[in-house]
Amino acid sequence: MAAPNPSALAMVPFVSVQDMMRIVNAIGPRQMLREICAYIEADFLRWETFDKTPRIPAHSEEGVIELMPTTDGEHYGFKYVNGHPANMARGYQTVTAFGVLAKVSNGYPVLFTEMTILTALRTAATSAMAAKYLAPKSARTMAMIGNGAQCEFQALAFQEVLGIDTVHLFDIAPKASEKAARNLADAGLKLRICASAEEAVAGADIITTCTADKQNATVLTDNMVGAGVHINAIGGDCPGKTELHRDILHRADIFVEYPAQTRIEGEIQALAADHPVTELWQVIAGQKTGRSTERQITLFDSVGFAIEDFSALRYLRDQLERTGHFVQLDLLADPDDPRDLFGMVNRAKESV
Amino acid sequence: MAAPNPSALAMVPFVSVQDMMRIVNAIGPRQMLREICAYIEADFLRWETFDKTPRIPAHSEEGVIELMPTTDGEHYGFKYVNGHPANMARGYQTVTAFGVLAKVSNGYPVLFTEMTILTALRTAATSAMAAKYLAPKSARTMAMIGNGAQCEFQALAFQEVLGIDTVHLFDIAPKASEKAARNLADAGLKLRICASAEEAVAGADIITTCTADKQNATVLTDNMVGAGVHINAIGGDCPGKTELHRDILHRADIFVEYPAQTRIEGEIQALAADHPVTELWQVIAGQKTGRSTERQITLFDSVGFAIEDFSALRYLRDQLERTGHFVQLDLLADPDDPRDLFGMVNRAKESV
Repeated sequence: MAAPNPSALAMVPFVSVQDMMRIVNAIGPRQMLREICAYIEADFLRWETFDKTPRIPAHSEEGVIELMPTTDGEHYGFKYVNGHPANMARGYQTVTAFGVLAKVSNGYPVLFTEMTILTALRTAATSAMAAKYLAPKSARTMAMIGNGAQCEFQALAFQEVLGIDTVHLFDIAPKASEKAARNLADAGLKLRICASAEEAVAGADIITTCTADKQNATVLTDNMVGAGVHINAIGGDCPGKTELHRDILHRADIFVEYPAQTRIEGEIQALAADHPVTELWQVIAGQKTGRSTERQITLFDSVGFAIEDFSALRYLRDQLERTGHFVQLDLLADPDDPRDLFGMVNRAKESV
Repeated sequence: MAAPNPSALAMVPFVSVQDMMRIVNAIGPRQMLREICAYIEADFLRWETFDKTPRIPAHSEEGVIELMPTTDGEHYGFKYVNGHPANMARGYQTVTAFGVLAKVSNGYPVLFTEMTILTALRTAATSAMAAKYLAPKSARTMAMIGNGAQCEFQALAFQEVLGIDTVHLFDIAPKASEKAARNLADAGLKLRICASAEEAVAGADIITTCTADKQNATVLTDNMVGAGVHINAIGGDCPGKTELHRDILHRADIFVEYPAQTRIEGEIQALAADHPVTELWQVIAGQKTGRSTERQITLFDSVGFAIEDFSALRYLRDQLERTGHFVQLDLLADPDDPRDLFGMVNRAKESV
């Protein structure tokens, strides 16, 4: 007797890196950023329905591997993500990721996907969503300090969602800024490569910091941040890694994703454990005020949270039919009789 | 310019259900059980080198989804596993699983695999390993109470590792026992289908309980367990799910994998939090005594622990070259310049 082909129950849609690139290019990166932003916003609006836990890290000398699970009671999602600052010099990505969405009712996965690219998209979409509530309404110019893998995604998200038209690029590696300028050449943005962080922040309404060193660096000093600016701090995202001088934190109103995680990983790890912060979801839900004055300095201390990945997974799953860019993986054992796992294996012998 | 094909860095070996069945049949289930048993034993011997944490559960009314991570500092492994008792009646597996092995030094996955079948193998291999240290040396007869998906794997593991030659089968569903007897017909075991649990345990040196109801059931009562018996309790593996009458626990010397997890999930959830238990790894390492007298009742209160999955992943990875049964998945984004993730996506446009 031949082994039956795997049934539909055994199959999980898989989005490879190649398929993810096809999906991004089919939808268009800016439209995809806007749509993911809307999914994240919808999930932040129902924040209290989610099961929330700080990510589960495995730290080593070289970096960290983390699992980030969450569930809304209907679906369960998790992301596997590593952070290895020394990887780039060795030709590997600092951050790679993959993720899974599953049905809570039966525990079966419904999507397995690369998430290196998807994380880049969701991180930028989250930044833009926060800035909708926190940046000055008239903001048109953004300084981008750190022009690594996240840079172009941030620029396009802020252009698409906020109407940013000018980006000041600065990186300690000039090649990184040149790479970003080249990739954004046709985006319809005014781009300026700057020789210093000071030059980049001059005239900027929004300052995005996104550097990768695993240390307490000072990318922004206090005198560089003028009244009315919104700071979108992306790179302070693990213990011992911050980007902002402490004095800035004391002048700013601070907004975070999930305080229990941000106090360990974010810029505010430098502050007292009870330093007041506002949860971003409460601003979106209208329970708390975002930007209230023109001269206020707002800071989104972003470390990335599992719900954002959940939203991105949910979004991606909804695009599978529309784009067709996925394959089915035979991931789940599905014997005709659920009790007969051994028999399924045994009968497969005859079909080899 | 055409998008380059994914480089070797982007690729992760994937073992599908079909490939896992090919691997099991190429190596042979009994040899594979013995070899996995040896890998688990080697890892239990170096127990203290592992980062250990109770599994991370997401409970719902219908069941549970869990992540089980661990690392030995060189490799990192985790398993995704669900447990949904109502699944079987709906034609789904009660337990399905998949897992990942990754390198700690750079965070890159080196193996992605189905683990429904692999979990069945490692569970049985762990049971047999424990019984090597805890069962009477002369044991030849095992009672198997609960003849579901785990049953045949247990029978073969005990035959291969301990030299069991007789198995008494009992299940409240006679069809389950018939299925097991059919699958084991050519195994060289003396099989007897029993009409009751009492009949099954009569004359058995080892009693394996492996039922699936999510409730505090009493599969074994006190009067059914005679002196000198080894109990291999598999099915009590989540809060609110036990199989043994409490009186048995008080007569037995109890051995566990990881107390912090077993006290929540195992048979001993019914006992005081400080009830004495022995960690199995200490017996294997010669630090504690296993079976010390002929009349002693030993109980392996098995709930499954992440290190066993880690061992199984490590074993499977070592078989990939030998068997060739895997495919490469394009899971990791690998731009030529690690900073140029956006450029990689953008350039792929031209190759669609």
